[in-house]
Amino acid sequence: MARVVVEVMLKSEILDPQGEAVANALPRLGVKGVNSVRIGKRIELDFDDSTVDIESKAGRIADELLANPVIENFTLKVEDEDSGA
Amino acid sequence: MARVVVEVMLKSEILDPQGEAVANALPRLGVKGVNSVRIGKRIELDFDDSTVDIESKAGRIADELLANPVIENFTLKVEDEDSGA
Repeated sequence: MARVVVEVMLKSEILDPQGEAVANALPRLGVKGVNSVRIGKRIELDFDDSTVDIESKAGRIADELLANPVIENFTLKVEDEDSGA
Repeated sequence: MARVVVEVMLKSEILDPQGEAVANALPRLGVKGVNSVRIGKRIELDFDDSTVDIESKAGRIADELLANPVIENFTLKVEDEDSGA
């Protein structure tokens, strides 16, 4: 079973209120030294072994279902079952 | 500026309704061969260069703010600014 990991993050110019909420909570946790927090999505797509061209298929899924191209960027990482990396 | 990426995913035994919704939409997109879809969070924590022990700090943030230990697992990846990997 081959896996493609899709990582979707807000474009850098887009405000990230979720990330800011976490950043504002850090002093209460007593953690210093954090400049910024950005929060996005990590999606694992597991394909049949027999499926070919999984990267382009994952790209289509990301483009049409998982990311909003106006405000988000995405990256694809193909992971083999055994290497897991 | 050093960055720690926290990846939070639901534990494998936990049902993932978001992932299932995406998986159910794939036939309409005409994409076949996808066994499963799992959706989680990807959080980028950017630290000052002067900050020491960033991995354990990120671990504390993940444990207390970013992940629910009952239903989620998290992993930490330290990324240098220049390597970006």
